[in-house]
Amino acid sequence: MKNLTIDAERLWNDLMATAKVGATPKGGICRLTLTDLDRQVRDWFKAQAQALGCEVTIDDMGTMFARYPGQRDIPPIAMGSHLDTQPTGGKFDGALGVLAALEALRTLHRAGYETFAPIEVVNWTNEEGARFAPPMIASGVFAGVYKRDWACARADRGGETFGDALDKIGYRGPLRCGDHKLSAFFEVHIEQGPYLETEGKDIGIVTGVQAMRWYEMTITGQDTHAGTTPMPRRHDALLGAARVVEAVNRTARQFPTAVGTVGILEVKPGSPNVVPGEVFLTMDLRDPDATVIDKMENEIAAQARIVGSKLGLEIITKTISAEPAVQFDADCVAAVRAAAKISGYSAREIISRAGHDAAFVSRVAPTAMIFVPCKDGISHNEAEFSSKEQCAAGAQVLLQAVLDYDRQLADHYGK
Amino acid sequence: MKNLTIDAERLWNDLMATAKVGATPKGGICRLTLTDLDRQVRDWFKAQAQALGCEVTIDDMGTMFARYPGQRDIPPIAMGSHLDTQPTGGKFDGALGVLAALEALRTLHRAGYETFAPIEVVNWTNEEGARFAPPMIASGVFAGVYKRDWACARADRGGETFGDALDKIGYRGPLRCGDHKLSAFFEVHIEQGPYLETEGKDIGIVTGVQAMRWYEMTITGQDTHAGTTPMPRRHDALLGAARVVEAVNRTARQFPTAVGTVGILEVKPGSPNVVPGEVFLTMDLRDPDATVIDKMENEIAAQARIVGSKLGLEIITKTISAEPAVQFDADCVAAVRAAAKISGYSAREIISRAGHDAAFVSRVAPTAMIFVPCKDGISHNEAEFSSKEQCAAGAQVLLQAVLDYDRQLADHYGK
Repeated sequence: MKNLTIDAERLWNDLMATAKVGATPKGGICRLTLTDLDRQVRDWFKAQAQALGCEVTIDDMGTMFARYPGQRDIPPIAMGSHLDTQPTGGKFDGALGVLAALEALRTLHRAGYETFAPIEVVNWTNEEGARFAPPMIASGVFAGVYKRDWACARADRGGETFGDALDKIGYRGPLRCGDHKLSAFFEVHIEQGPYLETEGKDIGIVTGVQAMRWYEMTITGQDTHAGTTPMPRRHDALLGAARVVEAVNRTARQFPTAVGTVGILEVKPGSPNVVPGEVFLTMDLRDPDATVIDKMENEIAAQARIVGSKLGLEIITKTISAEPAVQFDADCVAAVRAAAKISGYSAREIISRAGHDAAFVSRVAPTAMIFVPCKDGISHNEAEFSSKEQCAAGAQVLLQAVLDYDRQLADHYGK
Repeated sequence: MKNLTIDAERLWNDLMATAKVGATPKGGICRLTLTDLDRQVRDWFKAQAQALGCEVTIDDMGTMFARYPGQRDIPPIAMGSHLDTQPTGGKFDGALGVLAALEALRTLHRAGYETFAPIEVVNWTNEEGARFAPPMIASGVFAGVYKRDWACARADRGGETFGDALDKIGYRGPLRCGDHKLSAFFEVHIEQGPYLETEGKDIGIVTGVQAMRWYEMTITGQDTHAGTTPMPRRHDALLGAARVVEAVNRTARQFPTAVGTVGILEVKPGSPNVVPGEVFLTMDLRDPDATVIDKMENEIAAQARIVGSKLGLEIITKTISAEPAVQFDADCVAAVRAAAKISGYSAREIISRAGHDAAFVSRVAPTAMIFVPCKDGISHNEAEFSSKEQCAAGAQVLLQAVLDYDRQLADHYGK
């Protein structure tokens, strides 16, 4: 048996090298999707994959597929995640999934191991949704959840569209998004929560993803002079928004497994001596059970109606995305379980509390995910951290799971 | 007696012409201080004043003084206001005071009337404070309230300093701010409140200005993932900010004459799926009685301490400006009262609820203000409106008050 152990050092070096692209003073990364920094890291990834003999194709949502040939020309087993980050993101969210996949491929390449199916490393565009909402927009189009033209017309807060941004960095490819078929998809990711670390487990065998819904709310009152407008005559959009923020928090706390977040809040006109006339905000509601989100949505809407009528504000809420809970593929999950065991890592089953590209891909291909612990459960923060050994464990289990699934495919196709 | 009646039509045309510089689709003006739009309207004002034979000098805070000679070379009687606006400002706030003064000067010029003292029209820089806090920064330096170097180092939210912005539009003049002495100062302004309109009065004889204080607050929590961070583990800076907004509102309502406003609120990192780790906000507190502001400040600080300790947030508050209540000069106020009477306008005494350059100037020169009604008391809003007749009344009373004061000066100097 050839040595199929991934190189922990090499993976770590890749993580630290890519972390320089968009590095922040506090040790994190600001590499928003489809910016010039994103282009730089994409170019790097392309060059690395080509050096292994991969053919790199780009679809018309900018997603990159680096293909390593197998014995049979069947749909590939894909591994990957995303290289974009939050505005104050960490070094591991997304990057680990792409670079662990690259490292797994390097290990196969170095060993001269020939898989039955082709193997691919995928970099999905705009997983974060920080610049263009909704998140996971490219895997969403890939899975038929969103329309491509709608996705390309999504604008950032500066008015630039997703499509224009794709063209600007030269990553609108010729492949029609969704035409590319996969035999399976595996994604390594940091847990972004506290459970693996608390229980001292090396690996999370991810069985599914909780349900998630995003909303945009616009609250309209009246801009007036802060010195001359008596308190009872005001229609203060920010006071209304403050009550909505409080309602989201209070409502989420009523359900033990739910979370609710207002992440963006913009005030117009934004002057110290003007009573704000308009506020735009986003809401993110999640729970493993979608009916809990229904209840939260109704409760928040009822509270917002009261706020609006009391303060004389117009409040308009739009649902931007609504993702049901996801159950990953039983065979893929079994491959991850077996891979953790054969690699000698402690593991537990876990439900992902965050959305991931894997959640959308699971609609069109057998899919599973592998979690590794991260320090204090902190993510979407510059202090996000997983150790070299934790990252390596994720990459090793990924490689083993892909090889296990490849053997299943070979049996299935009757090698 | 020469005809000393201002031309209502000409004043209105000036208001409508300058309103085009930075015009917004909703009929307002966005002409932030020291932008290129501000430069355009300054250039226009300079050309108009020069056409009347005025010498225009600029001080090193960018304030413009257009001087029309009198019989004696004594400190001038000045009139004016400001040409900058709020981000969604109206056509009258500030502009009326400068253009009414220009119209008064035109009327003297047309009549060949020779005053005893020189007459000046002043355009104060950055009255609004929307781009650079605090407001009335140039008249503040003029009156010795602020240091010039501190003022020039104030930065906008994009990091550009007041001094650099002055240089960029070419309006850092050679005159040292404050060296220029005035015999008196009169400012016409829209009321920006509901009282004159409600009582059907043409003119407000402004006897003083209420006290005002500005604060900046930074609330620091922790950026974390909106999907994976359980509600009890969060340090949500925006939730803390929402509670501060509520506390400001609740506290101001405890005092019948007080107002309290959060006008700017900025959220970092500002992503739909990140629990906000930092919020910056401004507070504006006012009351005719400064001890009421003391009480509000203490109450809000106590509330903020509770919010911070409950949510695990660091809250830092800085006082940016603290203006005591102002009593205008008795002789100047008397000149306004007499002018309203001789012009045949109904009038009442009133306290200004808004800050004005006149409040600072009153520390170094005898000062008064003249208010005209505005529709529904609405200001700092694109819908702000005063009629042609209301504007003309303000200009006419301004001219009469200046002539009255000029006669007093002549008596005083023993003409």
